[in-house]
Amino acid sequence: MKLKIKKELLLDGLSKVSKAISTKNLVPVLAGIKFELEDKGLTLTASDNDITIQVFLEKNDDMVIESTGSIIIQGKYILDIVRKLPDEYINIEVVDELKIIIYTENSEFNLNGISKNEYPNINLEKSKNPILISSKVFASIINQTSFASSNDESRPILTGINFKIMGNLLECNSTDSYRLARKVIPLNDVVEENYNIVIPSKNLLEFIKIMDDSEENISLHVFSNKILIQYQNLLFQSRLISGTYPNTANLLPDEFLLSIKTRINDLYNVIDRASILTSDKEKNIVTFEIDGNKLFVKSSSAEIGRVEEKMFIEKNNEENLKISFVAKYMMDALKSFEDDEVEISFVGEIKPIILKSSKDEGLVQLVLPIRTY
Amino acid sequence: MKLKIKKELLLDGLSKVSKAISTKNLVPVLAGIKFELEDKGLTLTASDNDITIQVFLEKNDDMVIESTGSIIIQGKYILDIVRKLPDEYINIEVVDELKIIIYTENSEFNLNGISKNEYPNINLEKSKNPILISSKVFASIINQTSFASSNDESRPILTGINFKIMGNLLECNSTDSYRLARKVIPLNDVVEENYNIVIPSKNLLEFIKIMDDSEENISLHVFSNKILIQYQNLLFQSRLISGTYPNTANLLPDEFLLSIKTRINDLYNVIDRASILTSDKEKNIVTFEIDGNKLFVKSSSAEIGRVEEKMFIEKNNEENLKISFVAKYMMDALKSFEDDEVEISFVGEIKPIILKSSKDEGLVQLVLPIRTY
Repeated sequence: MKLKIKKELLLDGLSKVSKAISTKNLVPVLAGIKFELEDKGLTLTASDNDITIQVFLEKNDDMVIESTGSIIIQGKYILDIVRKLPDEYINIEVVDELKIIIYTENSEFNLNGISKNEYPNINLEKSKNPILISSKVFASIINQTSFASSNDESRPILTGINFKIMGNLLECNSTDSYRLARKVIPLNDVVEENYNIVIPSKNLLEFIKIMDDSEENISLHVFSNKILIQYQNLLFQSRLISGTYPNTANLLPDEFLLSIKTRINDLYNVIDRASILTSDKEKNIVTFEIDGNKLFVKSSSAEIGRVEEKMFIEKNNEENLKISFVAKYMMDALKSFEDDEVEISFVGEIKPIILKSSKDEGLVQLVLPIRTY
Repeated sequence: MKLKIKKELLLDGLSKVSKAISTKNLVPVLAGIKFELEDKGLTLTASDNDITIQVFLEKNDDMVIESTGSIIIQGKYILDIVRKLPDEYINIEVVDELKIIIYTENSEFNLNGISKNEYPNINLEKSKNPILISSKVFASIINQTSFASSNDESRPILTGINFKIMGNLLECNSTDSYRLARKVIPLNDVVEENYNIVIPSKNLLEFIKIMDDSEENISLHVFSNKILIQYQNLLFQSRLISGTYPNTANLLPDEFLLSIKTRINDLYNVIDRASILTSDKEKNIVTFEIDGNKLFVKSSSAEIGRVEEKMFIEKNNEENLKISFVAKYMMDALKSFEDDEVEISFVGEIKPIILKSSKDEGLVQLVLPIRTY
């Protein structure tokens, strides 16, 4: 294998696949990046068994392929070397089968490689009927739902996002059993087969970090135990979480006692201030007291003190209400709307609180209240 | 105590003193900030017994003092509250002796205060003959020497910077016994008394973080067991480290085998790349091989591989040399010069390496070599 390649091109590919390099040392070869150089271009692959990322750099003017071949190079070193070399072009050559030489005019690195035969055989096949979706819409879905997933590995199913695809509708649900984020979007095409899968939230967050700002289609290839996402010259494969996702269909009430409208940013800041007086953010409980056209936001801690914030709101009727909840959950839900204003609806003081925005009708956030007496 | 004060003014004062709030809960009152409101203005004090910071906000148009008084307020809450309140002015009132009310038009915080009588009595007296020094010069001294101090508390004396003041000269030394940073600057005035003290490096780093970009004089008030630094409306007091600082006077050689000149930035990057191939940065050993007008920078690790970098240098004679050292120490030393070029002088392969720059003659960096055979 002998290659001369533009630094920026190689660095971009290495940066993307390096997200999948295993940091655990259980399988040493997975700390490496597989380089496969063929006449048509260079394929880079990294995997930690949970996710696999593959980038294909097609042969172009930024690449001189002198001889083809494959080798596995320690991921953290090759990324650092390429990042820190000041030269425009970098040469990579394999000699004596496993000796890698990376060189430019004034720099030469000799690394010990690993034979490509040691790399696990990872199947990155595509499905016949992939689902197409805009990259921006996909990133929105993940950002608007993933925060509501659980971090608690004792119920693995709740650490993922549930994707349900029926006809031309995609419905994503994410819940840690204290709150629920739901986003429904129409697809451009009707799918041939319905899907109901759970994808690990942290893997989806890794994937959207790789995406750039351009809007283009990505394609989702769903299998029984894995999903392959194709984006530009990149393949991203994640395992699915097995098990049955809780049925969230009946959680959203359809009749409400009272709805209020308010500016998202102002309400966020009010709750943020009301939750200052706590030593453990996660558990800080804040109370809404709706009285006429005023919303009082209150919180107190016996040792530290108490806080009361007041803001003016719009209401749809004359009902008043007092309800308590975890500040962080409400703030996370508020942040998920790409809008200035939110509508918050209440059924009663021990019933779910529902957040919606007129600009983004596919998104619903649910926060369960806390009984404080 | 009743006060109306401009948010920005109070926030600036609180941010500065909060650097001294104790994060250990050994003395609960030290987690607080002491507010002392007098007719002439507001004094804020925080201390963790190691450092004490006091800011005086003089009465001006941004402050309405309705009644004077003193109270101790939990530092982390008051800082967060003031930072997050959106209002231009903030009211602070103490009622029933220990109840603190912080309020604006729509927000009200009630906090439990602590009596000022519980606060330790901290003496912030000034000396009769303070030493004046430019704030920018002082910041440079700390930045150019502190990194060479030790973090190892088993030899406390080496965790500080040694300040020696004799006549009109200030000499600062910092060493962890593997390297030495020395900066000598002339003072504007001759001091009446000579000083030889050791100030904890981490405290000096805290102090220079508080300084803004303006150039003005700060005054150093030295006592037998503490130093008080006066800067603008702020007093910063630190304990001194007791004990005798090692004598560094004879460490700097005055005759050299060979000196080379090179661009700091280029050499820094070359050593940075040469030290990639290691799993433990602290211990990565790099070798200089000076051969003619070329400097080869080499490093190797049996498991990972080896690297060789080449750069062109200026020399003052025909001598060649091979010498090894810890990459990080050389990189720290190079970074300390506010110049483009550095002169590196060698006595022999097991003798100290000396770095100097023509632009900053008061600064000398010494790095001890490592014997590699």
